Amino acid sequence: MKPLFAALTVALAGSSVWADPLPSWNAGETKSAIIAFVDSVTDSASEAYVTPADRIAVFDNDGTLWAEQPAYFQLYFAIDMVRKMDPAALTSDALKAAAAGDVEALLATGKEGLLEVLAAAHSGMSVSDFQASVSDWMEEARHPTTGKPYDAMIYQPMLELLVYLRDEGFDTYIVSGGGIDFIRVLAPDAYGIDEAQVVGSSLVTDYVVGEAGPVLMKQPDLFFNDDKAGKPVAINHHIGKRPIFAGGNSDGDFEMLEWTTSGETPGFGLYVHHTDGEREWAYDREGHIGVLNRGLDEGSERGWHFADMAQDWAVIFPSTE
Amino acid sequence: MKPLFAALTVALAGSSVWADPLPSWNAGETKSAIIAFVDSVTDSASEAYVTPADRIAVFDNDGTLWAEQPAYFQLYFAIDMVRKMDPAALTSDALKAAAAGDVEALLATGKEGLLEVLAAAHSGMSVSDFQASVSDWMEEARHPTTGKPYDAMIYQPMLELLVYLRDEGFDTYIVSGGGIDFIRVLAPDAYGIDEAQVVGSSLVTDYVVGEAGPVLMKQPDLFFNDDKAGKPVAINHHIGKRPIFAGGNSDGDFEMLEWTTSGETPGFGLYVHHTDGEREWAYDREGHIGVLNRGLDEGSERGWHFADMAQDWAVIFPSTE
Repeated sequence: MKPLFAALTVALAGSSVWADPLPSWNAGETKSAIIAFVDSVTDSASEAYVTPADRIAVFDNDGTLWAEQPAYFQLYFAIDMVRKMDPAALTSDALKAAAAGDVEALLATGKEGLLEVLAAAHSGMSVSDFQASVSDWMEEARHPTTGKPYDAMIYQPMLELLVYLRDEGFDTYIVSGGGIDFIRVLAPDAYGIDEAQVVGSSLVTDYVVGEAGPVLMKQPDLFFNDDKAGKPVAINHHIGKRPIFAGGNSDGDFEMLEWTTSGETPGFGLYVHHTDGEREWAYDREGHIGVLNRGLDEGSERGWHFADMAQDWAVIFPSTE
Repeated sequence: MKPLFAALTVALAGSSVWADPLPSWNAGETKSAIIAFVDSVTDSASEAYVTPADRIAVFDNDGTLWAEQPAYFQLYFAIDMVRKMDPAALTSDALKAAAAGDVEALLATGKEGLLEVLAAAHSGMSVSDFQASVSDWMEEARHPTTGKPYDAMIYQPMLELLVYLRDEGFDTYIVSGGGIDFIRVLAPDAYGIDEAQVVGSSLVTDYVVGEAGPVLMKQPDLFFNDDKAGKPVAINHHIGKRPIFAGGNSDGDFEMLEWTTSGETPGFGLYVHHTDGEREWAYDREGHIGVLNRGLDEGSERGWHFADMAQDWAVIFPSTE
């Protein structure tokens, strides 16, 4: 190869004309639709052109950007925190089950028991102390089935999608039913998403000035539940614009996809469909986690796209570090 | 001048070595302190160096970035909206006073009356309809004393400070007691601040799916009061990091400055002090708007800086367009 042509090839390989922006996505309708959408909104000659300031993309976290089985990862964190509590403080069946690491018994205590365990692990400390605990936990804890660190169970194809969108001038946000203070600990390193671009559920937080100075104290009461119709509300509250790209995996994301695809400008709705029982978990209409009913029934007629994990994803998790 | 030197001069004029980043600020202690602080946190050889991702600057809006006398500008908007209401809907003294444009009579109805007028102007419509009204109003309305458009009553020196900070890698946020949906209409054009970087007070918002599709409806109940201790709470909620620069003008900003200057890394607290009764308004310890008592008493011993408008600002408002 002559030097000039070699240099040209190297230069072009870095551009979207030559490089595949989504190498872990198999060729197919969904991959093509994503790329066609991004091309249309970033082409200033296109009728669908959207200025960079309005290229907002929002993603659910659990089951969309990382796995959520056999239970939400944040619940494992809560259990591990309760395990460290003074045994004298384990005053309920739910707390005792959590301290014993008995997830089945904990789930059997119902929603009230779960909320008690979550409150014990997420309140009564400052935001910075809480986040230091999450950070330590993320280093040490291992997933009960795969034995991987939890932040190694992010989806490689979605990671590529995030990078691709940002390369094309999008701002990428997480809009999760999970805890905002929790997700912020991992979002920068795991996803390249800044803390300010994480939206989630939250507890009441109080500003308390003590002898050592002011702290933000996490209280047990719920401040905002960022799920279902709460997601478009939170998007307005935190971002102030309607997204043009939304990714989710459950009926808890339905309204977010609906809001994203109901604007004057075209919007892209993407559902991650958990179809791969071998490499991940296969589930949709049944169970307690990531239930996808209405989305499966109405998604296609609404023009939304489905990432069939078994079929569309060549890789699920990043290769082991 | 020889061509090479001319080119060099042009190149250097664009750098902070030669150009004054704050031309509307008179030389003095406050201007020097701002520049010294920015130099220290952006110099990678400095002990005080802060990475760009953590260079967060927060600013109050009313009385800090634009004027707030003789009443908050958002109140004039509310009055103008009530004026357009069906007379049959004017069922209280407060609404009648507002519709008559009688600010004195409206203020005499007290906090309850004010809240009623604000609720009438800010709820019962979608966020997008509300923002279209604000946009129209901003075009047409004129300030009762100066006759200027309200968005021409922003402070030129603060505008320069915002640009300077952004040029030095800061993210600049508004953290205001005013309404988040209101401020977002003007922030991009007036301040170069994106909607997502506006934090403010807000009403409950509901996601409602009607025949014409989904809308976000503004309800009359308060969701969050972004004032006093609410400001650090909102900063955590929206940004997720402690700022290193905070600007305010009243005791409502005290906790925001306190939080900003209590971190492990050095933080800069700036109070705009309204000392110029000729070019603007002179007020601090007394009145209903922008009261600054504790800040004046404790600011200096806390190491905060004061922009004395009469002394430090060569220009107040931008030159007429």
